[in-house]
Amino acid sequence: MKPTPPDVVRAAYAELVVTDLAEARRFYVDLLGFTVSADVGRALYLRGYDELIHHNLILRQGQEAATARLAYRVRCPADLDLAEAFFADLGSRTARVPAGTTPGVGETIRVEDPLGFTVEFFAEADWAERLQQRYDLRRGVEPARLDHFNIVVPDVRAAYAYYTSLGFGLSETIEDENTMYAAWMFRKQTVHDVAFTGGAGPRVHHVAFFVHESHQVLRICDILGSLHEEFLIERGPGRHGVSNAFYVYLRDPDGHRIEIYTSDYYTGDPGHPALRWSVRDPRRRDFWGHPVVESWYTEASTVLDLDGRPRPLIQQNQPAEAGAAQVGADGFTR
Amino acid sequence: MKPTPPDVVRAAYAELVVTDLAEARRFYVDLLGFTVSADVGRALYLRGYDELIHHNLILRQGQEAATARLAYRVRCPADLDLAEAFFADLGSRTARVPAGTTPGVGETIRVEDPLGFTVEFFAEADWAERLQQRYDLRRGVEPARLDHFNIVVPDVRAAYAYYTSLGFGLSETIEDENTMYAAWMFRKQTVHDVAFTGGAGPRVHHVAFFVHESHQVLRICDILGSLHEEFLIERGPGRHGVSNAFYVYLRDPDGHRIEIYTSDYYTGDPGHPALRWSVRDPRRRDFWGHPVVESWYTEASTVLDLDGRPRPLIQQNQPAEAGAAQVGADGFTR
Amino acid sequence: MKPTPPDVVRAAYAELVVTDLAEARRFYVDLLGFTVSADVGRALYLRGYDELIHHNLILRQGQEAATARLAYRVRCPADLDLAEAFFADLGSRTARVPAGTTPGVGETIRVEDPLGFTVEFFAEADWAERLQQRYDLRRGVEPARLDHFNIVVPDVRAAYAYYTSLGFGLSETIEDENTMYAAWMFRKQTVHDVAFTGGAGPRVHHVAFFVHESHQVLRICDILGSLHEEFLIERGPGRHGVSNAFYVYLRDPDGHRIEIYTSDYYTGDPGHPALRWSVRDPRRRDFWGHPVVESWYTEASTVLDLDGRPRPLIQQNQPAEAGAAQVGADGFTR
Amino acid sequence: MKPTPPDVVRAAYAELVVTDLAEARRFYVDLLGFTVSADVGRALYLRGYDELIHHNLILRQGQEAATARLAYRVRCPADLDLAEAFFADLGSRTARVPAGTTPGVGETIRVEDPLGFTVEFFAEADWAERLQQRYDLRRGVEPARLDHFNIVVPDVRAAYAYYTSLGFGLSETIEDENTMYAAWMFRKQTVHDVAFTGGAGPRVHHVAFFVHESHQVLRICDILGSLHEEFLIERGPGRHGVSNAFYVYLRDPDGHRIEIYTSDYYTGDPGHPALRWSVRDPRRRDFWGHPVVESWYTEASTVLDLDGRPRPLIQQNQPAEAGAAQVGADGFTR
Repeated sequence: MKPTPPDVVRAAYAELVVTDLAEARRFYVDLLGFTVSADVGRALYLRGYDELIHHNLILRQGQEAATARLAYRVRCPADLDLAEAFFADLGSRTARVPAGTTPGVGETIRVEDPLGFTVEFFAEADWAERLQQRYDLRRGVEPARLDHFNIVVPDVRAAYAYYTSLGFGLSETIEDENTMYAAWMFRKQTVHDVAFTGGAGPRVHHVAFFVHESHQVLRICDILGSLHEEFLIERGPGRHGVSNAFYVYLRDPDGHRIEIYTSDYYTGDPGHPALRWSVRDPRRRDFWGHPVVESWYTEASTVLDLDGRPRPLIQQNQPAEAGAAQVGADGFTR
Repeated sequence: MKPTPPDVVRAAYAELVVTDLAEARRFYVDLLGFTVSADVGRALYLRGYDELIHHNLILRQGQEAATARLAYRVRCPADLDLAEAFFADLGSRTARVPAGTTPGVGETIRVEDPLGFTVEFFAEADWAERLQQRYDLRRGVEPARLDHFNIVVPDVRAAYAYYTSLGFGLSETIEDENTMYAAWMFRKQTVHDVAFTGGAGPRVHHVAFFVHESHQVLRICDILGSLHEEFLIERGPGRHGVSNAFYVYLRDPDGHRIEIYTSDYYTGDPGHPALRWSVRDPRRRDFWGHPVVESWYTEASTVLDLDGRPRPLIQQNQPAEAGAAQVGADGFTR
Repeated sequence: MKPTPPDVVRAAYAELVVTDLAEARRFYVDLLGFTVSADVGRALYLRGYDELIHHNLILRQGQEAATARLAYRVRCPADLDLAEAFFADLGSRTARVPAGTTPGVGETIRVEDPLGFTVEFFAEADWAERLQQRYDLRRGVEPARLDHFNIVVPDVRAAYAYYTSLGFGLSETIEDENTMYAAWMFRKQTVHDVAFTGGAGPRVHHVAFFVHESHQVLRICDILGSLHEEFLIERGPGRHGVSNAFYVYLRDPDGHRIEIYTSDYYTGDPGHPALRWSVRDPRRRDFWGHPVVESWYTEASTVLDLDGRPRPLIQQNQPAEAGAAQVGADGFTR
Repeated sequence: MKPTPPDVVRAAYAELVVTDLAEARRFYVDLLGFTVSADVGRALYLRGYDELIHHNLILRQGQEAATARLAYRVRCPADLDLAEAFFADLGSRTARVPAGTTPGVGETIRVEDPLGFTVEFFAEADWAERLQQRYDLRRGVEPARLDHFNIVVPDVRAAYAYYTSLGFGLSETIEDENTMYAAWMFRKQTVHDVAFTGGAGPRVHHVAFFVHESHQVLRICDILGSLHEEFLIERGPGRHGVSNAFYVYLRDPDGHRIEIYTSDYYTGDPGHPALRWSVRDPRRRDFWGHPVVESWYTEASTVLDLDGRPRPLIQQNQPAEAGAAQVGADGFTR
């Protein structure tokens, strides 16, 4: 009998290793507008304006840029035990981390998950000061909260199966007759907490932050143009076909990809039906039909194991989406 | 031992009795932009553009304007049995309504709840055609989905206690040392599925529909001004202190109050902390400090019992919020 | 023969006397987001982000709050001579002020105009640094430029006749069979550079600043709510019937009324036809039909003469608009 | 002595020859939302919601797609005589067209201007019904009025000199040490009525329509995506460096390029200083640094002479902007 999975509430925070913490602080705090929850010298803990837990993002100074961990909140402390048993059963390495190790959160379970990512589960967190109605403090893109992680995996269907076993629901996919190119899965009542992009993995494609309105997405682009840092805008702004969200992708000074994301939809009803996009629909990645820049498909962040060492990559064992779409576009009848 | 409450998923639809269905159709469909899911002659079934179930609003032709029922989705058919037992235990009248009675939904349980409202629970619903990405069809305020019900009750604390027993969480209140003037409670991960306003009850204060951006709220006001029906705009647009949402209140041709609502926040974390507003803070009802028009406090829709008869009113047994706020405002030190 | 009027280009700046320059600076610079062009100790020179001349607003420390002058740009230095002759012919007191007296502008002609206002004309101004594309600097409501002056006069038709003689065009009016209650007049290709409100005068009703989009108007209200200074929001946000603009009226710490204004229209065609609103149309002042708060009709800033002394008031010699509208609204058939 | 040029007020309308008038009507009226001022069978006369003259766009059925004429309003009938003499002096072919030939406008002068374009001047026009406040009628992108023409010319500096002689002011340029790659010129108080793009000419690059807010630009893209006509979106939405405007470029069913344009700035002050962009600044064409799609530089509409025959092309006699920018980008130091 399979062990019961923990009751995951939502994607909560990510830890990014950055090579110049001062530069990273300027990008995330001064330009994007995150709030500093804690500054402990070698690491910064940041959150969005709506966020009520301690942090959505940990920036840690290191030698090489990487994503050290992705963290989900679970419902209660007993879910940590469930998580430990669940991953032990999968043969995953796990570690129990005492409360206080990460500022603002209680005890956690860290695992090297079957996809090769270091994932952290926590149940308890300090409530942060409410800043949602401190419009006087707002800057930049006015990030509200973390929305989701997007991860690069060699086998999207395997990732889908694994996250299904963890209790995640499916909201959307990109497919053709033979292949699942991408999938979006959720615990909280939005389109996703995690999504999978096919490619050599494990790597982190991007971390996405929610904002409330489209004009905020436009504004961060204008700010970056003002500073002649427009080269940090990798893709967009645009409307996603998948999720219907309005987006822009930025690259931080270390190349970590950040999505600014607004306007997705409610998925909380039981049996929420998944929306399946053909890989041949040019609107799936951009509803306005614009081609995806190549770097968006090819570049992603290295992930670290429980010991902080870079994970080796496994090459993609499925057709590349860009190629499949290209074939499709050629044969596309309007 | 108290019976287990049903697992309520969210506020789903309301049935409004209207005295001129053609006029109501013009208001909700032609002006506000709702989609017609079904037109059965004496009744119209409408939904928002994001909605995946059959309807968010039933307009039924009748002699006297009233709210006939408020409906919540529950997680699964077994929750209908739980609902029946739960309300039987409370001494409430209940009725089991076979699938197909209401188009698009399965079997339901209807109850006269302890607050005097006719509330319907359903587990199964037909999935509707996805229209979210049919921007070519959008009109009016572009309603996305039903967000919440606001009900008038003589005793807010009693309503709070009852909905707590049904498993609802508390997001915000308006209070002073002695009195709870209003409360907001949720099952889905937003600020509310139901809110309570103190007054003679049971009456329905408003039904609220979610839209994605503030400019959509401004647009419906401009449309009503264009048609010289600006008198249908009762209050706002404005920013609520409570919920932080951007709102406008409209009155339909029968006087039913409709809120158009955007930009609230995520409440899905376990133990989500409630925000308590002083009745003396002039920003609680309007973050910009504008006084609430008197009709907004005094007028509301009659509710019908299971037999379709108007419910008698019970006078408010707590101080009026407007009065308490007034005293407060006088003594307010800036 | 009447003298040729100067070729007025546009409304350019106003000088406000404030009783606490530090408080005024906080309001205009820190909260609203004006740029400081010059700080000369007893006075601040401010401009909007799009503005290319030195200033749109002078804040000068004084004993009593007042509006010291309203300034228009004229096309060339010869227009200063025309202005001098034009006002001498009207019997107005005039003064020629040498270049450099006001930082950033050349020689000016100051006059006590026939309506009792101190008006300044200048032809030459220093070009300011372009900040329009410095989105990184933007704060508050992001004022772009001064748009217009609104002045209170006892006799609107007399003000209309005088400004017509100065070469201004008429864009809109509020009227009934007998009375012109208000009028909007322009030189630049927008709805107005100056507007007249009937009342005891001369007083300045408000100075208006243009912003590019509606969400900027909403934002300043949210900022003021955040700081619990929502009482500075006097009226709106809303849509004007007249001008079609989206507006909000704020009161600065001295009670000077400021309008934030967006979305008016092009009036540059020859013979541009005026739009005449009935005083009985409840949409004329607010397209959404909301009543105008009483203070908006009754309060306004004292104006100073050429010697800096307050001008005595002449009582309104025409029916009050609010009263006429009230009568109208009573008799209004929907 | 050079003849006095006519007093040009603004760019007013364009005539596009389309090969399928029903398809063109669907694009401009049903999707973009233009108002039909007149339908005379073989031609449609369209205007924006703010426009007070009869039309901004004439769609005429023809065999081959082309731009038949670009029309400017002049101040008064005497300016037609000035126009005739001005162009006769330049050796341009001219024709006097009686009132009533084009619905809604008075007598016109048509010329084959020195750049090879058929340009029409008119002084008198019928006032159209005001629709600005008919928000109930709005659809699509909600076009407000024509903003400007962008024309392709082999020699940008020659075009600049010619339009300077016609009394146009210069607002912005793209240059390097040797070459003027593009220029923006105005009569009305905005960034431009006409702009020049270097290339084989005469051809019309695009006709631009003003809208009031950015979200309207996003909306038309969403509508086109909804209808799976996203391939009509050629470039953008984005922020222009030049003009600071927020834009999108669409191609109509015949390939005519349409710009939707918002948020430019006031240029009405005497001696308005031009802003000169380096061809090496990647933000000049897109403030967010995105590359311009190749078709945008290479494709444009054929123009017709006074007899309705296509004008032969003269090849560009200056370096291509795309090439110069590329060299620049290579040498660009960030």
